[in-house]
Amino acid sequence: MYSFKNDYSEGAHPKILKALMETNLVQEEGYGEDHYSLKAVELIKGKIGQTDVDVHLLTGGTQTNLTAISAFLRPHEAAISASTGHILGHETGAIEATGHKVLSVESKDGKLTPAAVQAVLEGHPDEHMVKPKLVYISNSTEIGSIYQKEELQQLSDFCRQNQLILYMDGARLGSALCSKENDLLLSDLPLLLDAFYIGGTKNGALLGEALVICNESLKADFRYHIKQKGALLAKGRLLGIQFLELFRENLFFDLAGHANKMAEMLCDALKQAKVKFLTDSPSNQIFPIFPNKVIAALEKEYSFHVWEKIDEDHSAIRLVTSWATKEEEVAGFIEELKRWV
Amino acid sequence: MYSFKNDYSEGAHPKILKALMETNLVQEEGYGEDHYSLKAVELIKGKIGQTDVDVHLLTGGTQTNLTAISAFLRPHEAAISASTGHILGHETGAIEATGHKVLSVESKDGKLTPAAVQAVLEGHPDEHMVKPKLVYISNSTEIGSIYQKEELQQLSDFCRQNQLILYMDGARLGSALCSKENDLLLSDLPLLLDAFYIGGTKNGALLGEALVICNESLKADFRYHIKQKGALLAKGRLLGIQFLELFRENLFFDLAGHANKMAEMLCDALKQAKVKFLTDSPSNQIFPIFPNKVIAALEKEYSFHVWEKIDEDHSAIRLVTSWATKEEEVAGFIEELKRWV
Amino acid sequence: MYSFKNDYSEGAHPKILKALMETNLVQEEGYGEDHYSLKAVELIKGKIGQTDVDVHLLTGGTQTNLTAISAFLRPHEAAISASTGHILGHETGAIEATGHKVLSVESKDGKLTPAAVQAVLEGHPDEHMVKPKLVYISNSTEIGSIYQKEELQQLSDFCRQNQLILYMDGARLGSALCSKENDLLLSDLPLLLDAFYIGGTKNGALLGEALVICNESLKADFRYHIKQKGALLAKGRLLGIQFLELFRENLFFDLAGHANKMAEMLCDALKQAKVKFLTDSPSNQIFPIFPNKVIAALEKEYSFHVWEKIDEDHSAIRLVTSWATKEEEVAGFIEELKRWV
Amino acid sequence: MYSFKNDYSEGAHPKILKALMETNLVQEEGYGEDHYSLKAVELIKGKIGQTDVDVHLLTGGTQTNLTAISAFLRPHEAAISASTGHILGHETGAIEATGHKVLSVESKDGKLTPAAVQAVLEGHPDEHMVKPKLVYISNSTEIGSIYQKEELQQLSDFCRQNQLILYMDGARLGSALCSKENDLLLSDLPLLLDAFYIGGTKNGALLGEALVICNESLKADFRYHIKQKGALLAKGRLLGIQFLELFRENLFFDLAGHANKMAEMLCDALKQAKVKFLTDSPSNQIFPIFPNKVIAALEKEYSFHVWEKIDEDHSAIRLVTSWATKEEEVAGFIEELKRWV
Repeated sequence: MYSFKNDYSEGAHPKILKALMETNLVQEEGYGEDHYSLKAVELIKGKIGQTDVDVHLLTGGTQTNLTAISAFLRPHEAAISASTGHILGHETGAIEATGHKVLSVESKDGKLTPAAVQAVLEGHPDEHMVKPKLVYISNSTEIGSIYQKEELQQLSDFCRQNQLILYMDGARLGSALCSKENDLLLSDLPLLLDAFYIGGTKNGALLGEALVICNESLKADFRYHIKQKGALLAKGRLLGIQFLELFRENLFFDLAGHANKMAEMLCDALKQAKVKFLTDSPSNQIFPIFPNKVIAALEKEYSFHVWEKIDEDHSAIRLVTSWATKEEEVAGFIEELKRWV
Repeated sequence: MYSFKNDYSEGAHPKILKALMETNLVQEEGYGEDHYSLKAVELIKGKIGQTDVDVHLLTGGTQTNLTAISAFLRPHEAAISASTGHILGHETGAIEATGHKVLSVESKDGKLTPAAVQAVLEGHPDEHMVKPKLVYISNSTEIGSIYQKEELQQLSDFCRQNQLILYMDGARLGSALCSKENDLLLSDLPLLLDAFYIGGTKNGALLGEALVICNESLKADFRYHIKQKGALLAKGRLLGIQFLELFRENLFFDLAGHANKMAEMLCDALKQAKVKFLTDSPSNQIFPIFPNKVIAALEKEYSFHVWEKIDEDHSAIRLVTSWATKEEEVAGFIEELKRWV
Repeated sequence: MYSFKNDYSEGAHPKILKALMETNLVQEEGYGEDHYSLKAVELIKGKIGQTDVDVHLLTGGTQTNLTAISAFLRPHEAAISASTGHILGHETGAIEATGHKVLSVESKDGKLTPAAVQAVLEGHPDEHMVKPKLVYISNSTEIGSIYQKEELQQLSDFCRQNQLILYMDGARLGSALCSKENDLLLSDLPLLLDAFYIGGTKNGALLGEALVICNESLKADFRYHIKQKGALLAKGRLLGIQFLELFRENLFFDLAGHANKMAEMLCDALKQAKVKFLTDSPSNQIFPIFPNKVIAALEKEYSFHVWEKIDEDHSAIRLVTSWATKEEEVAGFIEELKRWV
Repeated sequence: MYSFKNDYSEGAHPKILKALMETNLVQEEGYGEDHYSLKAVELIKGKIGQTDVDVHLLTGGTQTNLTAISAFLRPHEAAISASTGHILGHETGAIEATGHKVLSVESKDGKLTPAAVQAVLEGHPDEHMVKPKLVYISNSTEIGSIYQKEELQQLSDFCRQNQLILYMDGARLGSALCSKENDLLLSDLPLLLDAFYIGGTKNGALLGEALVICNESLKADFRYHIKQKGALLAKGRLLGIQFLELFRENLFFDLAGHANKMAEMLCDALKQAKVKFLTDSPSNQIFPIFPNKVIAALEKEYSFHVWEKIDEDHSAIRLVTSWATKEEEVAGFIEELKRWV
């Protein structure tokens, strides 16, 4: 049984484990003030091409989203999310638990547009309703799509004109930036966004997300929020060492590139076999549609999520590749598939 | 410069890192449903001697405290803590951020007694005040003291008579249970407590605390709370593998035993030198009092916290030992000390 | 200019003011423990036909909703509301501010059905999502519709089978129960609902809602929640005296009956004039559709809300009647209307 | 049985009820946008002598405190209160329920000083602790003392130097400003404070507190917070009419003056009889100490709170006077007392 269920089925990239081994007995400060974390932060600033951003290393995606969003908003302010957004439906109401409503916008491709956000603003004119204040986007999105630079530029312009905070969930930012359809650079992001995070967990780390705060007005006292929400690790070095390894050379991008390449192999084979897709995804998650019988057959040797019922006889499944996906397993899956479609 | 600053200055015990290496590429389920976590949970239940407890693996102490306490309390209910309690003053209002007041009880030895809790209950008679509901204790405490079985039994009886939840923060539970003054067994705890956690971070793990919920009425839906508070790691295996290693044989106790032995060495030498202590501590944190000049001299070669001013010329410092503390460094510190006291 | 804008444009029914005058200088206990409040509570229990319910008098609708719902739910639990529900879009995220998500169900008539709630349950299968726990309904709804007994019975049965709390917002319960299409009795409600409130503000009181908690498991410590949320008036007598007057004889129903009668007069005249309606409403809010020119003309002499754009040339308006609506003003409005439609 | 239990035992001053009667059937806007509220706000600004403050009318003290403080603070920030402070121990954790810790400062006279606040700041140096941000004071305090202008000036200067918000709970501001020991003017307050409220409930209104926000940076979007916390009355006129009456001429001060005069009568008689007091109080709450036997005798004809045990045989009681306290009852109490002391 081989799993295409997600991009967190294995541990960490071996280089990361090696770095943990080599540094293990060095005594360091706690709470993210160790040399590795400090150096990782500087390295990330360098890769981003901005020194006036603040970078914080946190443990996971939900943790990062809830810590950042609750720190950025006043009590009456709300976040806006696409209907597929992770904070909207897959984080157990973590944002609401900090007191803030998440407003949903129907979206077929998982992305938000100025027009969609404008409609939310118009529907919330006065103090009897929450005040929409933060626009939450994911890149790549929860259904595999990515933002083009022009799309993000427009959304960014709109947010600035309307005093909205633009925040990007980058759990799969690596895959987005390494997509062959991508035209965004990591260094574009601080110019377009108020804050975003660079996902480590789904791109080769044991755990860890690097939150980048670009907007000066959102920076103050952020470590208080990290501590208060339980996200400040005593052994912060665990995060520092991993991000150091991911960004010391090019590992972060190499790993994402591999994940995408594996997804492309699957995609190309499926397209050749005239298989249809639920969404157009140029990243490491793809959503092919199969007859239910085929799905049942595939499930005997592969694990994956059945994503959505299409009709009585067909469903879309989700196949996820990662830095650890083996090319021979992808080839094997394609072979198996040829027997059925 | 050698550090006695805390018990999280190094990484993990080498056996733990080895286990992470060996299992690294095995594909597993996410979110704590991997085989390692499931097995670690069973193992811990075995060590505790109870199969009807629920065990959850979380990332850190503040995270565990806030997730558990907010799950256990209704909105109008409050926690009671000794004035030295970690949740009271060292977690950035994490409990209050979930909506609950923490009531403080002055305590010289860091421990709570039935009489002290009774006084809090009497001071909160009606609906104009919060309703005290959860008694928070630490073992070992934040100032190094430990609970004797008889003390804990009395507190437990009192809590049951008064419908109070008794919760133990076990960030340093290993050191408490391995203290030479201790008469509590791990297997006593589920009989005396409603919930407690077994600290991994400060006893050899990279991160990780094992929360044990003993009271049936507190168990339902707990994984929702873990997820909502951002504590559910995608790669939950990271916690499972570590606790598996800590409890597979006797590593957890061996490591705590070493930490205590190092503290004893320090303590014995200090007592021989007629040094006085701020508190009587039989665990891995000790609080000797020195002339400020001596402290300044020691600080040239050792790092530690200056804990409290005693008078114009004297202060108490905190020395913490751990699984990683080297015996030769302790000996060296003692040598150095002899030059001064 | 006469207003059909809402049912809270005037003060209180004169009998209520008279009662306030007559009792004004009597010394009473504070915080709802005065004789008037205690007697009002008993009177309401009598009218409901249940002595084992708890009744609490609170100041307003949003206050009552947020106090009750936050008291009833655990942190990971969510409310379900029709898309028109007051708590969803018109209370500034008051429920979310207490930590709970409100899940929206599209509804054309403002009502919820077992099938609609079932779909929400199916969409929330595990701990990565909130746990739907409380079903929020309004009667009459925000768009004037009312629940038939059979509908409410089915929803109640479904909720009990699924361990869901069924809560009714009764801001306009008087109008619902006095509708000519209604077949529910006040005494049916405790048998069908876990909790509900009887709205005073929109039915002749200066302010005040009577929350009725029927489900035994939701009753404990409720006064703590009232106090904590700022809803416990020092001079609770203000609420007690008003509800005493509303329920001493039949005033509550008389006032609602008058409001409905005025709405019916409007409705009948509009139907005769072949005016169409946005919703079918048998209560004190009606939503006729007019050409925009007619609306502009009417606005010169009457105030009301323009509710919704229908097309380029037409809009629906909301006309609200109340205990204080004057029959001659309704007649005048109808006369004016005849000039235009 | 006559009550000296509190200052909210009766209804409203007759002039207020008269105003409610006279305006009752005038149609007005809801939610505090009625002409009475708008006029009351302007009137209060005039009395304060500042036009650039924002004034909001809310229902009660706890409500006002929690709405204001939660609006003013970011999630990691805390309030500082004297140990006697109402928000600390008598509001059922209302502030904590909005996510904020209240830090306690021991205080014998119920007041805070720069030195006391400085000590709190020094005890909270970093992100492992909450960040003290708002200084909560009451005037008159919960034990009857009042701030002298010089004291308030010093506290105000200290707060500005330390970027702290200075907030005054004015539940009994009338009594404080009308005390014969007072040297503060209402018009001094906006110059010294960031926000405060003028209490109506305890000075002749049925309910109502007027929150005055002086600091520009705290004003934005405040009505959202009022609505979200359930404090926005549909019939806001109820508050507007009352404050209009209180401040149209001099009623607010006349009523407080009467309350103080009645307390002085009691005080003078007690002092003549050599009775000792728990606190030195120049306002409408006094705390004489009696033998328990005398208290038992007095309780046969008068109701009051037994405040605090002094020793086995003596207790302090609290006597509260108000706008409604009858001079003959005070004289009667003094007569009765003479039989015992």
